[in-house]
Amino acid sequence: MAAQNLIEYKNAGPEVRAVFDDIMATRKVDWVNNFWKAIANDPVTLRRTWESIKQIMAPGGALDPLTKELIYIAVSATNQCGYCVASHGASARLKGMTDEMFGELMAIVGMANETNALVAGYRVPVDEQFQ
Amino acid sequence: MAAQNLIEYKNAGPEVRAVFDDIMATRKVDWVNNFWKAIANDPVTLRRTWESIKQIMAPGGALDPLTKELIYIAVSATNQCGYCVASHGASARLKGMTDEMFGELMAIVGMANETNALVAGYRVPVDEQFQ
Amino acid sequence: MAAQNLIEYKNAGPEVRAVFDDIMATRKVDWVNNFWKAIANDPVTLRRTWESIKQIMAPGGALDPLTKELIYIAVSATNQCGYCVASHGASARLKGMTDEMFGELMAIVGMANETNALVAGYRVPVDEQFQ
Amino acid sequence: MAAQNLIEYKNAGPEVRAVFDDIMATRKVDWVNNFWKAIANDPVTLRRTWESIKQIMAPGGALDPLTKELIYIAVSATNQCGYCVASHGASARLKGMTDEMFGELMAIVGMANETNALVAGYRVPVDEQFQ
Amino acid sequence: MAAQNLIEYKNAGPEVRAVFDDIMATRKVDWVNNFWKAIANDPVTLRRTWESIKQIMAPGGALDPLTKELIYIAVSATNQCGYCVASHGASARLKGMTDEMFGELMAIVGMANETNALVAGYRVPVDEQFQ
Amino acid sequence: MAAQNLIEYKNAGPEVRAVFDDIMATRKVDWVNNFWKAIANDPVTLRRTWESIKQIMAPGGALDPLTKELIYIAVSATNQCGYCVASHGASARLKGMTDEMFGELMAIVGMANETNALVAGYRVPVDEQFQ
Repeated sequence: MAAQNLIEYKNAGPEVRAVFDDIMATRKVDWVNNFWKAIANDPVTLRRTWESIKQIMAPGGALDPLTKELIYIAVSATNQCGYCVASHGASARLKGMTDEMFGELMAIVGMANETNALVAGYRVPVDEQFQ
Repeated sequence: MAAQNLIEYKNAGPEVRAVFDDIMATRKVDWVNNFWKAIANDPVTLRRTWESIKQIMAPGGALDPLTKELIYIAVSATNQCGYCVASHGASARLKGMTDEMFGELMAIVGMANETNALVAGYRVPVDEQFQ
Repeated sequence: MAAQNLIEYKNAGPEVRAVFDDIMATRKVDWVNNFWKAIANDPVTLRRTWESIKQIMAPGGALDPLTKELIYIAVSATNQCGYCVASHGASARLKGMTDEMFGELMAIVGMANETNALVAGYRVPVDEQFQ
Repeated sequence: MAAQNLIEYKNAGPEVRAVFDDIMATRKVDWVNNFWKAIANDPVTLRRTWESIKQIMAPGGALDPLTKELIYIAVSATNQCGYCVASHGASARLKGMTDEMFGELMAIVGMANETNALVAGYRVPVDEQFQ
Repeated sequence: MAAQNLIEYKNAGPEVRAVFDDIMATRKVDWVNNFWKAIANDPVTLRRTWESIKQIMAPGGALDPLTKELIYIAVSATNQCGYCVASHGASARLKGMTDEMFGELMAIVGMANETNALVAGYRVPVDEQFQ
Repeated sequence: MAAQNLIEYKNAGPEVRAVFDDIMATRKVDWVNNFWKAIANDPVTLRRTWESIKQIMAPGGALDPLTKELIYIAVSATNQCGYCVASHGASARLKGMTDEMFGELMAIVGMANETNALVAGYRVPVDEQFQ
């Protein structure tokens, strides 16, 4: 199967345009990245996914916006999702991620993946204290 | 194969005891959790893993200690490592993770796993802006 | 290591040609995709893998051929296997997958990856009713 | 960290009860499984996740309800999510999954995981026909 | 869904018994482990899976039987498959895996999982020399 | 975010050069592959990762150097890490991996990924003999 067509704003129907407009307004940018153009092939998924991400990544919660992006990158690197590392890496930079922060983030992500595998291999039982 | 024996302090040799002592001193606790007791079957791995984690999780870097634990949990939940979620969840609580923070952490981890899969399924090409 | 050479029909030995012939006859096509040309470097694996897939994907079972392809795509997107999404996506299209079906498939795959991670993070115990 | 408390209906606040009521009404059952009781610790995630799943798994789309459950199981087995296999396996049984269907589902899931790994190991390039 | 019933020899039909007999004869043991009893619910998958594993794990190839088991454990720990680590760990012990070998195996598996994640996070391009 | 810059020897500071020198001396080669140039953006991670890999992959342990590379490839293919398959594949070739060995390695990796998923789907309980 060919990669999904990317739906450009100029070719989009009103449902898709409404979401694209909200993405650009919320993020204060004048373009939409390919992820949204791809899932715009399914306007219902586009709408639901955007509403969910908008809610989850909104400022004002218990975690600050930069921390949220770091967590997103951690999951994406673990899953080998190159696109997601690239796009959330860009967002994190905009929100203040420095080279030092990125280096520490990667160090933790690497180590967590290592110890996760060690736990499985050694079949470590959960401590009573953690039950 | 049976799960690895857990090496208790009282049965440990001097190399293992030295690491266990350092773990307890660094963390200001009087016990060692099962992960370390399991990998203590291989004192070289015990030493290297502890030195690495001690360096990576040390306070004073660009990321604060609680953020580091949140990242650790994010990777561990993604990898379905129950032990790691339990042990780093406990560490995060000690470092100040509230219920609200945990809820937001999980919301992001869930969403990131969702969009990682969408990216793969839709075969989304990396935007020029992210290259 | 360089990527494995792709074994073209004209350069293939009789064992490989026999499998390639069967692939083309079974699928009623006149070409073989790169997956088979790659694993043809190991004729034993080529034969075993083809016989297994031929058996599993054969029509006439309890699941129809299109449903089987959808399941294949679901696993492949979860594993971030771009090639597999592309090749089984093409097969699914040939077997009748519409844009609507693909959109719903991806929505489920995304949501399942999300809730799988939530289950791990919240450490949800299996209900008695499911034991 | 201890596993999250499960929020029982009788102890739940009105936001959580409203979601639990909708789950039971939609599914025509008189109980709520542990997944929902666990994420009820975060009512916002509970609401969002339920609304998303309700939309995605609703009857009347291009894929029938049983096929949707099969896809859910496929992802969950790939991710080693025991809880999710158990809960969606139960749903699939209620929607008509036979032993034969389950056997075929597993055969495909196993084979897809196998060939996904072969593709990565052999570094198979995407065929021009699939671009 | 409840876990699959385990098919015991005494309750098995002739197709299943024939495979169980071959497993016991090939492995020179007088019992069959739960994996086979579980997939015996689908005699076609039981037969195919056993024939494939028997071929792949057979002695006399380019890799010795112990190395094959080590590779099996490496994959299983990476995938967090507790059962598979346990069963192939037992097989590896029977074929001569020492504590030292297991320790080195785990050290490599841990490190590979770590560097795999680092590669994804740093988006490392493939060197020309490896193309 | 753009891919990380690759730090070339000529532009590197003394800490990075010292590690690069040790990599080249240990491996008896006159170049450094991109993985190291990428993580050289964080000299602390560069140093720690190199020291760890140097220790783990060193000759003279219970596993021979080629077996170690095969294990590394097994994990990397399971994780869909293309770069890692390419770089450790090259190392394995230098250490004597033949086409036959690679073919058998891949066959096992594929089968292990298959049976790992079957175990999860069938929810196979661990045998008493493996506890």
